[in-house]
Amino acid sequence: MDNASIMRRFLAPRSVALIGLSRATGEGSFNLLENLFHLGYGGRIYPVNPNAQEILGARCYATASEIPEAVDLAVILTPRGLVPSMVSQCTKRGIKAIIVVSQGFADADEEGKRLQQEITRIAHQGGARIIGPNTFGTVNAFHRFSTAFMKLELNPLPIGLICQTGVMFIGFPGVRLFGKGIDLGNACDIDFPDCVDYFGDDPEVRLIVLHIEGLRDGRRFLEAVKRVARRKPILALKTGKSEAGAKAARSHTGSLAGSDEIYNAGFKQAGVIRVGDIEELGDLVRGFLRLPPMRGRRLGVASITGAGGIIAADACERYGLQLAELSPPALDKIAALSPPWMSISNPVDMWPASMISGHPYDHVIKTTLEALLGDEGVDAVLYMTTEIEREPALDVAEAIFEVAGKFPPKPVVCWRYSPHVSQASARLEQSRRVLAYPSCERAVRTLAALATYYERIAAPE
Amino acid sequence: MDNASIMRRFLAPRSVALIGLSRATGEGSFNLLENLFHLGYGGRIYPVNPNAQEILGARCYATASEIPEAVDLAVILTPRGLVPSMVSQCTKRGIKAIIVVSQGFADADEEGKRLQQEITRIAHQGGARIIGPNTFGTVNAFHRFSTAFMKLELNPLPIGLICQTGVMFIGFPGVRLFGKGIDLGNACDIDFPDCVDYFGDDPEVRLIVLHIEGLRDGRRFLEAVKRVARRKPILALKTGKSEAGAKAARSHTGSLAGSDEIYNAGFKQAGVIRVGDIEELGDLVRGFLRLPPMRGRRLGVASITGAGGIIAADACERYGLQLAELSPPALDKIAALSPPWMSISNPVDMWPASMISGHPYDHVIKTTLEALLGDEGVDAVLYMTTEIEREPALDVAEAIFEVAGKFPPKPVVCWRYSPHVSQASARLEQSRRVLAYPSCERAVRTLAALATYYERIAAPE
Repeated sequence: MDNASIMRRFLAPRSVALIGLSRATGEGSFNLLENLFHLGYGGRIYPVNPNAQEILGARCYATASEIPEAVDLAVILTPRGLVPSMVSQCTKRGIKAIIVVSQGFADADEEGKRLQQEITRIAHQGGARIIGPNTFGTVNAFHRFSTAFMKLELNPLPIGLICQTGVMFIGFPGVRLFGKGIDLGNACDIDFPDCVDYFGDDPEVRLIVLHIEGLRDGRRFLEAVKRVARRKPILALKTGKSEAGAKAARSHTGSLAGSDEIYNAGFKQAGVIRVGDIEELGDLVRGFLRLPPMRGRRLGVASITGAGGIIAADACERYGLQLAELSPPALDKIAALSPPWMSISNPVDMWPASMISGHPYDHVIKTTLEALLGDEGVDAVLYMTTEIEREPALDVAEAIFEVAGKFPPKPVVCWRYSPHVSQASARLEQSRRVLAYPSCERAVRTLAALATYYERIAAPE
Repeated sequence: MDNASIMRRFLAPRSVALIGLSRATGEGSFNLLENLFHLGYGGRIYPVNPNAQEILGARCYATASEIPEAVDLAVILTPRGLVPSMVSQCTKRGIKAIIVVSQGFADADEEGKRLQQEITRIAHQGGARIIGPNTFGTVNAFHRFSTAFMKLELNPLPIGLICQTGVMFIGFPGVRLFGKGIDLGNACDIDFPDCVDYFGDDPEVRLIVLHIEGLRDGRRFLEAVKRVARRKPILALKTGKSEAGAKAARSHTGSLAGSDEIYNAGFKQAGVIRVGDIEELGDLVRGFLRLPPMRGRRLGVASITGAGGIIAADACERYGLQLAELSPPALDKIAALSPPWMSISNPVDMWPASMISGHPYDHVIKTTLEALLGDEGVDAVLYMTTEIEREPALDVAEAIFEVAGKFPPKPVVCWRYSPHVSQASARLEQSRRVLAYPSCERAVRTLAALATYYERIAAPE
């Protein structure tokens, strides 16, 4: 069976067998069948549990062999010792896709390693493929399907996640419950390259996210990401960088973490954007999903305080962007509002135009953003603002909406200086034209990643 | 007049003259008098504006000389050209503390530099001191006083902020509107050392925060922070690190940014904790205000997923903490709940004890935290958790409250893995015993700063 067909069974099965499904339901039971009902999954479901007649009204089967119809996917939930015989029953029933949720394999002791080899062998002999063991399996918001034990609220964002922990199925910081996900767990069989290739061709996926603890076959991985990265951005969080982290990775998913320098070089060569931590991952996911391409590295900065401009200049150097040299027409537009003693340059300090020259702040920010966005020497705009509840005059969301719509697409990000991450940021983002970040560094880092990606795909292969 | 007396006039004046106060009031007017009324300031207020009889019911004076009583503090808001004569009137009226809010001095052109020298000279000849120019002045939540044009909601936290931008008066990320603040602006006279010394002796201040664009007298600064840092933690955000940032600093507050390496060495020698950005500043402010001392670098980690433990191990290496070696009694307590095939070590993966061995998750987290907090080889605890609305069994706030209260004080931080920063974090922090951070790196970085500070103050001078 080709890769796309098998991966489709894992992510969008028409029917699923839940092998070793618990009879416990309700709060704290983490019952998979209950979750599928909750999601409104439209396929057929076959619980397998020899000790139950029915669970939540669904008829139970004593073994997989008894299931009367063909089944796309089996999910095995039994204690580890039973898994080899369950895999064997599945292959005999003709099931080609098997998720082994159970833990205690290469993540555990020598016996677990032996069991993992055994189930892999049984599956291959039976013409089946395995995701796992030690996995949450898959989630697919477009198909209302999930094998995760948690009750997820799914949101069909065009993200394809390939990870080694199911906790990521709930989303990333700032990105609520998304698209499609595959938790590879110990990755005894189905591995990163299979999934990258599949998401590369999946029209419902625009952005691929990797969480990697270790790779078995670096060359095959690099070939796959290289094929796909020019078509779709690939973001990678590689953990187990430290010695202690690598040791912990061996006992989490039995992964060999490998040299961090080799990963860096490989990602760079293949056009994969590496992120440093989970918060950066959330920031970049939002950036790549929402912002237009950044076609150069020249940033225009507008700030409510000069202090913000200094911080932005530092951040540009840190992340490899440049402060744009503004054109005379842009400078003139801003200077016309500003006090005569003020020398205008990028970063633009907007406050004197309002406080000293008396222009309403929303007019100042509109004029400044128009000047920056209209300047051919500017590839993206960062503005720093602050809103406090009792000063509505500092709320510039409406002004931003008005301006951002007028110009050809360039990324616009806001550093919202505030003691609380809040509804104000959410409101700013309603325009679907602006992203708000709680620090200058995070805003600039996101733009720098965009610039890097579009440089790489513009370069000849 | 000694430093404490003069600084008290700036921060807690019994009476204040507002020179050049605008007649405009209401939304968008940024009227200082209106703000003082809003705060409930208890001192006397004398507006000075030759074109008004009264503003908001307060009698106006044509000049400072006409004010009938002694005045602790004058705030000058006029256009820059009028400032020298206003300063002169103030000194003649016997006013010893003057805040010059007006812009267009060393932050602007040659004329501005000349004016700044002139007002400094006039003030000194008249025995007065200046904060500014180009400043928001001061804020003092304990005295219900502020010269900021924004309507602040004050919260009497024991923080003393010394900064070069008034936008920080609204707080830091995660720290809502606080304590006491001094915006030095161009710092023509009153400078960092004066303020550090004052906050060092101020019983209402437990933590000092610096935002520095440049220093005029590095030696005097270092002497001051060295005196104070052993008594109170000092956190410093130094901006203008890059060439472009240093250039921007010259036009914001006329500051010379100086070599970044020299700052690093000076901060280290003096015991000042340097932060990299504004978000780290907010994180560390919360950490130093809320967490008990960290007396070593050995971290115990408990995680809902093995992936979190790997990330925590990486973060420890990155920020200079160590994973604690757990004692046999601690290991035994955790092993008693876990599947037999599992080898327990730090970081502790809590999930198999719940999912495989069937213990309720709140019981697992309680047992694990008790084992870690009770272990003499553990100096602080990080736990990673996640809560999703539809899985109340994963909500462990109550369990945390129960455990954290039982043990002698060690810092406890939570990395809350979630797509949304939220009320759940706020609820976790209600215990006043736990701080929640949205990423592992930020939690570990905060602990590392605590460890560094307490190492420095424990070392012989």
